[in-house]
Amino acid sequence: MKIVLAYSGGLDTTVAIRWLKETYHAEVVSVSVDVGQEDDFKKIQERAYLAGSEKHYTIDAKMDFAKNFAFKDIKMNGLYEDVYPLATALARPLIAEKVAEIAKKEGTEYVAHGSTSKGNDQVRFDLALKTVLSDVKIIAPARIWKMTREDEIAYAKERGIPIKTESSKYSIDENLWGRSIEGDIISDPYSEVPEDAFELTKVRKNDKLVINIEFEGGEPVRVNGEKMNPLELIRWLNQEVGSRGFGRVEHLENRVVGFKSREVYEAPAALTLIGAHRDLEKSVLTPRELRFKRYIDSLWADLVYQGLWYEPLRDTLEVAGNELNKWISGEVKLEIDRKSMSILGRKAKYSPYSEKVSSYNKGWYPSDEEARGFIEIWGLHSILTKKARLD
Amino acid sequence: MKIVLAYSGGLDTTVAIRWLKETYHAEVVSVSVDVGQEDDFKKIQERAYLAGSEKHYTIDAKMDFAKNFAFKDIKMNGLYEDVYPLATALARPLIAEKVAEIAKKEGTEYVAHGSTSKGNDQVRFDLALKTVLSDVKIIAPARIWKMTREDEIAYAKERGIPIKTESSKYSIDENLWGRSIEGDIISDPYSEVPEDAFELTKVRKNDKLVINIEFEGGEPVRVNGEKMNPLELIRWLNQEVGSRGFGRVEHLENRVVGFKSREVYEAPAALTLIGAHRDLEKSVLTPRELRFKRYIDSLWADLVYQGLWYEPLRDTLEVAGNELNKWISGEVKLEIDRKSMSILGRKAKYSPYSEKVSSYNKGWYPSDEEARGFIEIWGLHSILTKKARLD
Amino acid sequence: MKIVLAYSGGLDTTVAIRWLKETYHAEVVSVSVDVGQEDDFKKIQERAYLAGSEKHYTIDAKMDFAKNFAFKDIKMNGLYEDVYPLATALARPLIAEKVAEIAKKEGTEYVAHGSTSKGNDQVRFDLALKTVLSDVKIIAPARIWKMTREDEIAYAKERGIPIKTESSKYSIDENLWGRSIEGDIISDPYSEVPEDAFELTKVRKNDKLVINIEFEGGEPVRVNGEKMNPLELIRWLNQEVGSRGFGRVEHLENRVVGFKSREVYEAPAALTLIGAHRDLEKSVLTPRELRFKRYIDSLWADLVYQGLWYEPLRDTLEVAGNELNKWISGEVKLEIDRKSMSILGRKAKYSPYSEKVSSYNKGWYPSDEEARGFIEIWGLHSILTKKARLD
Amino acid sequence: MKIVLAYSGGLDTTVAIRWLKETYHAEVVSVSVDVGQEDDFKKIQERAYLAGSEKHYTIDAKMDFAKNFAFKDIKMNGLYEDVYPLATALARPLIAEKVAEIAKKEGTEYVAHGSTSKGNDQVRFDLALKTVLSDVKIIAPARIWKMTREDEIAYAKERGIPIKTESSKYSIDENLWGRSIEGDIISDPYSEVPEDAFELTKVRKNDKLVINIEFEGGEPVRVNGEKMNPLELIRWLNQEVGSRGFGRVEHLENRVVGFKSREVYEAPAALTLIGAHRDLEKSVLTPRELRFKRYIDSLWADLVYQGLWYEPLRDTLEVAGNELNKWISGEVKLEIDRKSMSILGRKAKYSPYSEKVSSYNKGWYPSDEEARGFIEIWGLHSILTKKARLD
Repeated sequence: MKIVLAYSGGLDTTVAIRWLKETYHAEVVSVSVDVGQEDDFKKIQERAYLAGSEKHYTIDAKMDFAKNFAFKDIKMNGLYEDVYPLATALARPLIAEKVAEIAKKEGTEYVAHGSTSKGNDQVRFDLALKTVLSDVKIIAPARIWKMTREDEIAYAKERGIPIKTESSKYSIDENLWGRSIEGDIISDPYSEVPEDAFELTKVRKNDKLVINIEFEGGEPVRVNGEKMNPLELIRWLNQEVGSRGFGRVEHLENRVVGFKSREVYEAPAALTLIGAHRDLEKSVLTPRELRFKRYIDSLWADLVYQGLWYEPLRDTLEVAGNELNKWISGEVKLEIDRKSMSILGRKAKYSPYSEKVSSYNKGWYPSDEEARGFIEIWGLHSILTKKARLD
Repeated sequence: MKIVLAYSGGLDTTVAIRWLKETYHAEVVSVSVDVGQEDDFKKIQERAYLAGSEKHYTIDAKMDFAKNFAFKDIKMNGLYEDVYPLATALARPLIAEKVAEIAKKEGTEYVAHGSTSKGNDQVRFDLALKTVLSDVKIIAPARIWKMTREDEIAYAKERGIPIKTESSKYSIDENLWGRSIEGDIISDPYSEVPEDAFELTKVRKNDKLVINIEFEGGEPVRVNGEKMNPLELIRWLNQEVGSRGFGRVEHLENRVVGFKSREVYEAPAALTLIGAHRDLEKSVLTPRELRFKRYIDSLWADLVYQGLWYEPLRDTLEVAGNELNKWISGEVKLEIDRKSMSILGRKAKYSPYSEKVSSYNKGWYPSDEEARGFIEIWGLHSILTKKARLD
Repeated sequence: MKIVLAYSGGLDTTVAIRWLKETYHAEVVSVSVDVGQEDDFKKIQERAYLAGSEKHYTIDAKMDFAKNFAFKDIKMNGLYEDVYPLATALARPLIAEKVAEIAKKEGTEYVAHGSTSKGNDQVRFDLALKTVLSDVKIIAPARIWKMTREDEIAYAKERGIPIKTESSKYSIDENLWGRSIEGDIISDPYSEVPEDAFELTKVRKNDKLVINIEFEGGEPVRVNGEKMNPLELIRWLNQEVGSRGFGRVEHLENRVVGFKSREVYEAPAALTLIGAHRDLEKSVLTPRELRFKRYIDSLWADLVYQGLWYEPLRDTLEVAGNELNKWISGEVKLEIDRKSMSILGRKAKYSPYSEKVSSYNKGWYPSDEEARGFIEIWGLHSILTKKARLD
Repeated sequence: MKIVLAYSGGLDTTVAIRWLKETYHAEVVSVSVDVGQEDDFKKIQERAYLAGSEKHYTIDAKMDFAKNFAFKDIKMNGLYEDVYPLATALARPLIAEKVAEIAKKEGTEYVAHGSTSKGNDQVRFDLALKTVLSDVKIIAPARIWKMTREDEIAYAKERGIPIKTESSKYSIDENLWGRSIEGDIISDPYSEVPEDAFELTKVRKNDKLVINIEFEGGEPVRVNGEKMNPLELIRWLNQEVGSRGFGRVEHLENRVVGFKSREVYEAPAALTLIGAHRDLEKSVLTPRELRFKRYIDSLWADLVYQGLWYEPLRDTLEVAGNELNKWISGEVKLEIDRKSMSILGRKAKYSPYSEKVSSYNKGWYPSDEEARGFIEIWGLHSILTKKARLD
């Protein structure tokens, strides 16, 4: 029996290597997927072998993640419950696909991951794996073993397994698109999140930053006139925007597994890009298109968050989203000033804005009678009904 | 013939007094409604008489506006196209009602207002007046006379009508709930709005402001522990939050009359209160309630913006909104820091949040089999369909 | 240990009485709830005792079901996936409440029901019971025992348990609001449902039936001028409409447990009343109200079907629905002719319909200029945008 | 001055030919577009010339209408306010395009049509013309001349203009997709529509008709095994289904111009095809896709009805609709029996229906623990919230 394990290098999955071997007398193949987290993948591989992995793969999926996941999130303005740009949620199906490829290559249907039974990630991993690997047998040790964090540390010590010496009070998940911070110390929704929980969004620069972002077909392609590939662009923004302190999110979030939890995120690039993209959409789309887009945006975010990456509706939402994004080209000028982002102006290639039409001082004006005709008919259903109910 | 005119004291309506008298040989009764704008109503009355008004009324509707319009906007999170808290849109029906009362009292069915044929306000005024005064005859001089601003000034000079010496390059509408800034100088959506356009949100204080807002049944009742009435509360926030620079809005807005225009607003109290209220809602409502509330919120904002204050659907949306707001009690702690607002934490009376349920370290845990059962069934429709389409 | 069992008198729950006693060495209290099914409750009680029940309750909940469940379904136009009037789904929470009352009275927290692990009913029963009886322990024998129908019959024979001699090839659930027909013989979605599956909707009368239904506040109160209570009214319609063959539904239905199944129903009264009610709503509500109502109608039907009777959103949807139903008074005249229902006309108390306004031959007419003003502005966003994309 | 007139051959447009010539001293070019109405286009041309047309065009657009308008209506299940299959509304933009082509060819920007200022058609014509012919000058004589029907007849008699001797009490609009019937005699929403108003749906055959319709990619391609082109297929169904009396619609309809009017339609083919198509969609799409499709269906119908054929959102709705229709292939068997249509069964190529999954007697069964896990988590948000509100 051979088990392919999605291996992050953290405590849970390090312990899981040994636990899987002991419990199933299995050979363990560990897979680490680089989606832009700030990690030393050499050390991770080393740790995997020391913990007992028979074979380790490191897969560089950064550019794939940037182009096919993060950029989709921009085009669909993916913000779960209006605020969370889905960094972890988006990475899960990609990691699952990479792990599934290894499972196929290694000729096994056993796949393991480190998620617990209280989180969203198990839903995302399990459903992705079931879809791309139809006879997969999934093992989620943390759903089975009932160890606390302390138990895990003891388990590792007893067996001499090297664990990452995390001084951190927090449980972190990180990738190119954002960083999530959990931990019982901040789980109380009234307690203020301590400053040491943050990494990407500490105020390190006090000057105002003015940025010009250029979009083509809904995708950012240039920053301040400089062409950047998706990876460069996201990294540049994380660095520059984050160091002015913009990009924090905290709220009480509705998990797919049935309860609310307090969640804290940092996502400077994501929030900047989605903010600029939404502004440009508003400058281009008709009011009907705009309302429709906001509707499909929120459906899309729900699917992604709730582990339904493979729900067929997502395809249709993206097809519709792409149809509208065809017209989202132009530039957005914005200012980052100490934790705040403000849009200063925008120039949109296909904008119907017309000074002649909108100016109070020139051009087209409806006549008094035309205006009255519009208003009369516009409000007629309401007024007739209101009257019928008074009589 | 007697015409009751909604009189703001500005150039348009001052000229209108004389124009109405000359054009219709009518007696003009002017009415100014105080909805919290920073104006000297004595001077306004004086100007009305000098321009030719036969009789002037000043009506104090500030508290009415705060309680029955601004507070409704909080409960319905009224933000048109996600950003504009509807200050002007909300005041129009209230002004129309007050003017209609005077028309009844004065025994006339002729009512005039200063809106042009390119704006939203004509729709709001006309439809409100038609609903509350069923045989009303509406005269909107600016839709008829075709004078430019320069023409109006010349018209006033010729006739010795005193006009407010506005050095302002901007056309301003202001009330308790916000301030809107228009003018051809900022109508180009790419041009940066000059700092001198702003009044309420200039950075005058550089310290961080931490505020605790307490809600009961969806309405703010205490700030930093101190009970305030709606008027005091909004004013305090406009002052304190505004002086830290938070509360600006600018975007390309879809007018009800068929085109986009660049709009700029200041609304420190409104944006703070709606932000806090939305956060508290999210801490209390089920995911299904939350999505439903966001949906009715946006329908409500559209109705209010589009002049459909008397559309019967608004009643139903508010009934539904009130039903949900029953549970929105508790406090929200937030920080205003240089143009930015961040929520620090919240304590909600009816929150279903439970540390026992959500903590990774204790309490309830679904078993592996329960979790797998949930995930299997949760994703089953999607997976079966995905497979059917591959075969 | 004492177990209170929701007892229908059918094979599953009859076998369950004995199985519970044997498996848990428990005392079984059986409860039958009369929600209008055509059953002999004396015989059911007898059978319960013969099967081993220690105590049996028969509860008459017919009027409660008619007034508080079926009539709510009319007001919310409850049709799951556009067609199924939710008869079984609506009865489940009522039965659960009645059973929970008995459990409290009998001083036990053990409650059992006959649902399997593939159906919707387990979700409805379990969630209702968990809500109204907070420490309930639910036992669903059919989810545990893994017996086929044949196994159950053998189990009963061995132990001398009297079972209802059902010649039926079908598995039936019936109440006042409708009858559902399942069975492997009709599970293939392409196979035609045999005529012998139907009971309520056999064509027994060949004449046209014209009916006049009068509504007050959204509820039917009179048929052909005769005042009837909810129970009488539904029964009369089931009888008279059903005997003309109207009231069948068949479709491929999306179950809450993740798959599609072919479902067949008979619901003459429900389909007639909802049809008439929807027509009257359309005659009264503004277009905006109508679209909103259809939206909440479909959310409501989903909640009820999916076992979420106690989801708090249902309360809000009903509050909104009631607000709109206040205006739904008047009469609807319809014709039942051989499987078809057609509305012939309606007279609505609060209808804004006005011959003067709508007639082509008289009354109000917008002028050419007014009409052009309306059309220009109505289409302006679309036209400006279309042009911007061509240039 | 040359005016191109959309000419139906009816009273209004026949009188309009002369009226345009007299009023504008213009040359009139008349254009009749064949969209499948049962008319004699030779006689129509004759009448046009006798009334004074300088040049007449007859354009056969039947197949275009069937393929690009009616079939779109099937794929988008286009039913305005749940009932009206949009026959007239769909024909208007096509007629406008054909008329605009003639205007271009004839080198004029003056286009006339026969709509009044109370109807929907003026909105459809005007907006279509404005979009496809950017400098168009539209003349709608009936919005200007203020003649009643009697006035028009007198006008024609005086000038010796031959008019169609319509004994009809009704005003009819007809095309391949349906027939609409108006007239003051049926404008009262309570009055029963007399049998002589109907043409297509008179019961002429009393036998049951069983039909098998085969769809490919959402479009019907075969009836009872026989391949038919769109025109043949719609005609065959209008004939065969109509002669059994199925296909009538009557309701109180919300016009785009602000009021309700009683409308009566016949559309046997349209209602049959949409009914079958909806059934097939339900057999194939996931619950999420289905709800989304119903939503875009209703948005689409509103746009088409309300004259917004050129609103850009329509493109996106159709792109999304086509994406889903890719999977709608298979056959639907249905029965037409005296005014009623019932679906008997369906076989869908990409249906996820699986007997193994859905059967109560075999295959997959969730375990008790899995089922309980699903139910627990499925209802958890609701139950926790309900409890929080009781405490």
